[in-house]
Amino acid sequence: MTSYIKIPSHLTPSDPQGSESLAIERSKATFDVKELTLALYGADELSRRNKVLKVLESDPTFDKSNIYYMGRTELYEYALKRDKKIVKLFVTNKWSPEEYQIALRFLDLPGPYQVHRSMFIPTIMGQGTEEQKRKFLKPAIRHEIIGCYAQTELGHGSNVQGLETTATYIPETDEFVLHSPHLTSAKWWAGGLGRAANHAIVMARLITNGKDKGPHPFIVQIRDLTTHEPLPGIIIGDIGPKFGYNSIDNGFMLFDHVRIPRSNMFSKFSQVTKGAGFALARAATIAVRYSAVRRQFVDKENPKTLSNGRIVETPVLDYTMQQYRLFSVIAQAYAVYFTGEITFNLYKKYVEQSSSGDFSLLAHLHASTSGLKSLTTAMAVDSIEDCRRSCGGHGYSDFSGFTMFYQNYLPNTTWEGDNYLLTQQTARYLFKTYREVIHSKQQNKIFTLQSNTNPTIYYMSQYLSNPNQKCTITSPSDFMNPEVQLAIYGYRAAHLIAQAVDQIDNHQRSWNSMLVEISRISRAHCQYILVQNFILTLHPQSSDSINEKRRILHNSPSLKKVLTSVCNLFALHTIEKDLSEFLESEYLSPKQAGMLRVQVSELINEIRPNAVALVDAFDLPDYLLHSALGRYDGKVYETMIDWASKEPLNGITFDSSPYSEDLFKKKVKSKI
Amino acid sequence: MTSYIKIPSHLTPSDPQGSESLAIERSKATFDVKELTLALYGADELSRRNKVLKVLESDPTFDKSNIYYMGRTELYEYALKRDKKIVKLFVTNKWSPEEYQIALRFLDLPGPYQVHRSMFIPTIMGQGTEEQKRKFLKPAIRHEIIGCYAQTELGHGSNVQGLETTATYIPETDEFVLHSPHLTSAKWWAGGLGRAANHAIVMARLITNGKDKGPHPFIVQIRDLTTHEPLPGIIIGDIGPKFGYNSIDNGFMLFDHVRIPRSNMFSKFSQVTKGAGFALARAATIAVRYSAVRRQFVDKENPKTLSNGRIVETPVLDYTMQQYRLFSVIAQAYAVYFTGEITFNLYKKYVEQSSSGDFSLLAHLHASTSGLKSLTTAMAVDSIEDCRRSCGGHGYSDFSGFTMFYQNYLPNTTWEGDNYLLTQQTARYLFKTYREVIHSKQQNKIFTLQSNTNPTIYYMSQYLSNPNQKCTITSPSDFMNPEVQLAIYGYRAAHLIAQAVDQIDNHQRSWNSMLVEISRISRAHCQYILVQNFILTLHPQSSDSINEKRRILHNSPSLKKVLTSVCNLFALHTIEKDLSEFLESEYLSPKQAGMLRVQVSELINEIRPNAVALVDAFDLPDYLLHSALGRYDGKVYETMIDWASKEPLNGITFDSSPYSEDLFKKKVKSKI
Repeated sequence: MTSYIKIPSHLTPSDPQGSESLAIERSKATFDVKELTLALYGADELSRRNKVLKVLESDPTFDKSNIYYMGRTELYEYALKRDKKIVKLFVTNKWSPEEYQIALRFLDLPGPYQVHRSMFIPTIMGQGTEEQKRKFLKPAIRHEIIGCYAQTELGHGSNVQGLETTATYIPETDEFVLHSPHLTSAKWWAGGLGRAANHAIVMARLITNGKDKGPHPFIVQIRDLTTHEPLPGIIIGDIGPKFGYNSIDNGFMLFDHVRIPRSNMFSKFSQVTKGAGFALARAATIAVRYSAVRRQFVDKENPKTLSNGRIVETPVLDYTMQQYRLFSVIAQAYAVYFTGEITFNLYKKYVEQSSSGDFSLLAHLHASTSGLKSLTTAMAVDSIEDCRRSCGGHGYSDFSGFTMFYQNYLPNTTWEGDNYLLTQQTARYLFKTYREVIHSKQQNKIFTLQSNTNPTIYYMSQYLSNPNQKCTITSPSDFMNPEVQLAIYGYRAAHLIAQAVDQIDNHQRSWNSMLVEISRISRAHCQYILVQNFILTLHPQSSDSINEKRRILHNSPSLKKVLTSVCNLFALHTIEKDLSEFLESEYLSPKQAGMLRVQVSELINEIRPNAVALVDAFDLPDYLLHSALGRYDGKVYETMIDWASKEPLNGITFDSSPYSEDLFKKKVKSKI
Repeated sequence: MTSYIKIPSHLTPSDPQGSESLAIERSKATFDVKELTLALYGADELSRRNKVLKVLESDPTFDKSNIYYMGRTELYEYALKRDKKIVKLFVTNKWSPEEYQIALRFLDLPGPYQVHRSMFIPTIMGQGTEEQKRKFLKPAIRHEIIGCYAQTELGHGSNVQGLETTATYIPETDEFVLHSPHLTSAKWWAGGLGRAANHAIVMARLITNGKDKGPHPFIVQIRDLTTHEPLPGIIIGDIGPKFGYNSIDNGFMLFDHVRIPRSNMFSKFSQVTKGAGFALARAATIAVRYSAVRRQFVDKENPKTLSNGRIVETPVLDYTMQQYRLFSVIAQAYAVYFTGEITFNLYKKYVEQSSSGDFSLLAHLHASTSGLKSLTTAMAVDSIEDCRRSCGGHGYSDFSGFTMFYQNYLPNTTWEGDNYLLTQQTARYLFKTYREVIHSKQQNKIFTLQSNTNPTIYYMSQYLSNPNQKCTITSPSDFMNPEVQLAIYGYRAAHLIAQAVDQIDNHQRSWNSMLVEISRISRAHCQYILVQNFILTLHPQSSDSINEKRRILHNSPSLKKVLTSVCNLFALHTIEKDLSEFLESEYLSPKQAGMLRVQVSELINEIRPNAVALVDAFDLPDYLLHSALGRYDGKVYETMIDWASKEPLNGITFDSSPYSEDLFKKKVKSKI
């Protein structure tokens, strides 16, 4: 990349150097970082990551150094070029699907083919007839056609039932006519539609014999395969710039009586989910490393000295406010990561059981994943932003690695419906379950078996055994007991549910008037799940199958010790954040709340020496972070100034006087 | 602006039209919007706004229609062009300084001259010697020289004491030598420095006789006035792209032994403050209007019908979750606006008193403004983002008017030091005052006089009269009493302060270990101030001078009524958000907390009919909002599709096949 400004090479950061600060941090760790990384990912996954990373780092197409300076059009062209290349690599390097996924995660830039891979192909695979698969699946996998998924409309997002686009059946020709009756019917937001796709899966209201049968999916060719112009009767365009995701061509589309064969209708729906653990790990990695390098103020009560005796400023990581902000994000990252693993295993178990007709896990799984998606994406978005702010002014620079990352992560809180909609699905399940538990109790039925496997039933039964129970702990360290923690979370969730069910059933409050309570209930339930899963990871029950990764963890006392601190911090800090709900239920007393705060401080001290090592263990490569602040080697300031020298604006000399109409003195300066 | 896609003109949004939805909302208001606008701004300010707005809207230089599509360089050029033009208008139209400020607020894009106006000129004015003023002030006011303010360095932000740049006095020549000893000494972030400025005020450590006298300000010419190249020994550049503010050339600068005359040293420091009320009003305006237009789902318990009897979906503004999110932002906007006014009047009073040697207001004013700056900017940033998310998917589009607005507002939480630093200044004052109140109490001194004028002393005295008092209310509506509200806020602030002082004085906890508590204390104190000021606006004390704007308010029962609801919502919703602190002090009981929630719901219902009118009253013009979602006329969908048609990407036909190396089929399509 072009640099426009020459920085004298003798200038170095003032002491201590960033690399020294990080080395000190790393020497303080009480556990082996490599071992924890292995316990997180396993050996296979790690070797796949390394193999893929080598390919990406050595290919100029995947060079990221220009990315923060690009305008919208340039960024889109770059993303398209990369998407084209990655498809070729997938074929020529014979990557496995896992390796392909890893490559996309490291590339870390949504591209025009993303929806083709994540929605278009899976929908045909899962819902296509044999004929549809023959016609569309093979060309789609070979990327001979590029597809998108057009559901949301200009006037309707989450509410699929409100879609306006129609697909009217014409018996005479055995065709459907796709039509957009209003401006608000325009398909809107579909990724890849704006410029790249030549096919689309379109959700439209099926009209037969004058009857509206509601929304169904159809597959439609939308652009000419040679000229790439929209087909007759179809208007397509990019929807314009967005907060992030500007490397993707989210598009809009209007149909004017477009005919498609009947065989282009699909029969079912599909769903996708995403994870938040890596986003939290990434935010924590950048902020914790930079906080170890960055120094502000001399802490007069506890001054730091260099080996030569000179007093230096204190690393911001030594300030309690910074620790409180950042260590809670480290704890969230681990909590969400482990819950992701356990949920995925539960999902596999469900798939297995369902093939023999046992669907008992489905309701719990669906309810928990809806609420967890809402909770963890909101946690991640808030924590990314808090980590960014904790980096002070430099967090505002694109070079921090936070800005584009935040902007591209943000839509996770919105898509598949606003987070508040998802919480309603969780609450519906919880209310239904609660009524069932009460009913069984009244009939003296015992839930022992189910309550062992279903945590929801377990905590509800516990609550109903004595709705006026109180937490009995008497000292801060009592909060370290996992059973105490789960009892606190369980009581609070059950209490909120009991209140809400009472309001609905006995006081006839409308669902709409309860939406605030409902979002609280979903959060309470999902926090229980997160805490329980973290505890289960550290204390597997005899019935759990322990895999290779868990064995590494359980054979290492130092790993177990540090992760126990992290688990406790997650459990207690999360209570502290939502303390009013725990106090309002009167299960915790104000005095115990004070003890809780003391214990949180204690845990933060406990984690301090391991802070950098805990983020190092996530093993997120510099290539992914693309951050001047979060570099593994601590060369923060050298990178900031190097990247600034490459800002294209520095290639232009402006005429800044208001008395001259000219904007420029020189348009492009000599490059160095 | 070029449009690349032709949308058939017969297509309109499905019924009801946005304009109809807003008309219904406006017809439900219980007060006169124009009257409230007048009560907020006064007649003079309104006529100034209208006059300036007319000029801006009619001048093509200030056309905003292209702004969301611009890359960094283009955006900077546009901002420079606008800054040049506004200076000319200021001179030719003979605008008053107030009109100039209004124009900048409506232009709503930070430009290269911003720091010249807001920091460079005021610093010379306030701190320059007569000689310095002669030399620099007149040319600066005439914009013959353009200045910036270079304080922050690559390695140091808030901690001015840690700056590295040196200014060493050379007695032989009566000069200073400016020098950057390290890479981390590079001046960084200075607005206007990167490309525009030819002068700078530079903070550097004054070294005389080998002694380091700490940071002092110097004025320095940095670029040649003819060629605009940096002067010898000075390296300057733009620091690169940022989350927002990309229309400004924030710059960096390194000095290699640069000599300046001794007379270029200043003697004092300066400070600036900013407001958050308009940012809150703006976010609420967009989100509330769009929520009235946007419809999602049919609420089966309470379906809406058109005049023709057709059942339509419910405006999202009718969902309680949306009301809870948005009405609290309306309340914040009014609360912060009124506190801004009262603080400004207090400041004027202080300036008046101080001229006769009375500085009694200073400590209270300084402590409150530090904490208020931290609290209100954090409130504004969170609320802008929450309003953006409440707009669903479209909130993510730049056309929402939220993205650039959010990005440009965001640094308010960071500059002048991270918000957490400011809270420490507030807490220091509160601890000192608390110790004084206790001391006087012990000596049986009476604080009557001061406690009447100083709210801090008042609530501390109240608390100390009985530290174990409890809130005695017994029904939800009791919370509507302003005295009850202030007693709740006062007790909570005093209780937190009492605990902290006890910890510091008796248990020797270090300041650093208390930073979490300190930020809570500052927030508690400032929330008291915000609530008190809102109440005082509605119930002025006899001693207050009532100005023209307040008279309008007090002569209108309908205005007083609706603002009383808004004031109550602000007071009670803010308690609800931080409920744990109120419960932990045991002043409020869990049962009372339940009543509080009931009363908040009640207030939300009360405000519902006035929601759109309350945001209309802020009278923020479409020109400022530049939002498809927040338009006064409700033409949301028409604007979304019109602006999308202008996306430059739509002028290019891409070749999306991975089997072709070409990126484009056609580079520029025919324009329509």
